[in-house]
Amino acid sequence: MRIPVVIPFKPVNPKTRLSCVLSDDERELFALAMLQDVLNAARDAGCDPLVLSTAPFSLPDDDGKVNVEILNEGLNEALNSFCIRSAGPLAIIMADLALADRSSILSLMTSGSDMAIVPGRGGGTNAVYIRYSDRFRAQYYGSSFMKHMKFAETANISCSVVDSFRLYTDVDEQEDLVEVLLHNSGYARRYLQSIGFETESRRSRIGVCRDPHESGVVG
Amino acid sequence: MRIPVVIPFKPVNPKTRLSCVLSDDERELFALAMLQDVLNAARDAGCDPLVLSTAPFSLPDDDGKVNVEILNEGLNEALNSFCIRSAGPLAIIMADLALADRSSILSLMTSGSDMAIVPGRGGGTNAVYIRYSDRFRAQYYGSSFMKHMKFAETANISCSVVDSFRLYTDVDEQEDLVEVLLHNSGYARRYLQSIGFETESRRSRIGVCRDPHESGVVG
Repeated sequence: MRIPVVIPFKPVNPKTRLSCVLSDDERELFALAMLQDVLNAARDAGCDPLVLSTAPFSLPDDDGKVNVEILNEGLNEALNSFCIRSAGPLAIIMADLALADRSSILSLMTSGSDMAIVPGRGGGTNAVYIRYSDRFRAQYYGSSFMKHMKFAETANISCSVVDSFRLYTDVDEQEDLVEVLLHNSGYARRYLQSIGFETESRRSRIGVCRDPHESGVVG
Repeated sequence: MRIPVVIPFKPVNPKTRLSCVLSDDERELFALAMLQDVLNAARDAGCDPLVLSTAPFSLPDDDGKVNVEILNEGLNEALNSFCIRSAGPLAIIMADLALADRSSILSLMTSGSDMAIVPGRGGGTNAVYIRYSDRFRAQYYGSSFMKHMKFAETANISCSVVDSFRLYTDVDEQEDLVEVLLHNSGYARRYLQSIGFETESRRSRIGVCRDPHESGVVG
């Protein structure tokens, strides 16, 4: 059995914290590129991805292949409905984990615990695996990592924290783009490069810069 | 044989990017607390830590136990001298990896490659393992992750990138403190809590805030 991986996705006005460096259209295309990478990683890990989207969207290299459900309620409510219907093992992985790969997703699936979680920077929940999904209750938004850990404890579900920087790195802010340029080898990096982004050496952490003369750059 | 772990450390005026939230004395005490956690993690992993320090320092709970060498030259030069003398397996781990634990350090040591590297945020090198240390040449500062990867390729040394958020998270900036509060369970977290830090829920990533009435807070 291929384990279902639910990928929540927002195709319209996504990644607003990247507005300082990406135009509206670019943010949409970049979000699609990251989703394509996450889909490919999930398939490489032998999983069966399902995108839970706030609106219809089109993935140029994936149309017709990916299963999509349109969200008609809040994210937590929709995930919980899905979990109850599914009952078996299931993972929920965010669509902006551009560094996700086969190996990190397999680590999530094979922790040995009934629940496994990868925190995001700043206390979010970037990826979660649940062996018996009907026992899970999603509590996204805010400090969801602590909420999910507390939930597992209260529900007496064994829970591991999976140690993966690939799944820990969600791409939300300008400084996260350098991680895509350094550690992604798929659609997301190619898209950033195509609109002029490259790494820029600094005294401490590397930053990103953008060639203002690159064709196709929208102001 | 216990594998040596070299931990570069700067006890005087450390962590300057935390000056916005920590006084000079607090930055020194916080750096010592993180070093103590890294030392404990290295020992838990069965390693033999050696601190390569820019100046003498005192660790309240560790004095007399830890081996210290004082740096008389640049960091890269000192590391290379040590690597040539050592010749066998060796790891270099930064002193600000407050989330390091036994398991993440063991992952670094057991990648199966002759060299293993954990990148830091922004393209640094947070941890590196070398099976034959006399073949290694340290190239810290700037975009050291890419430099070390390139070095391994040129020197024809098999090299793995180890996927660990615990070793990927170096604590340099205010927003990194929340990771210590969430995922460290040792000296570093206790120190931050003792001077009034706690997590603060926000709409997106969690931040940190500090109770201004907490005793011992230096302005």
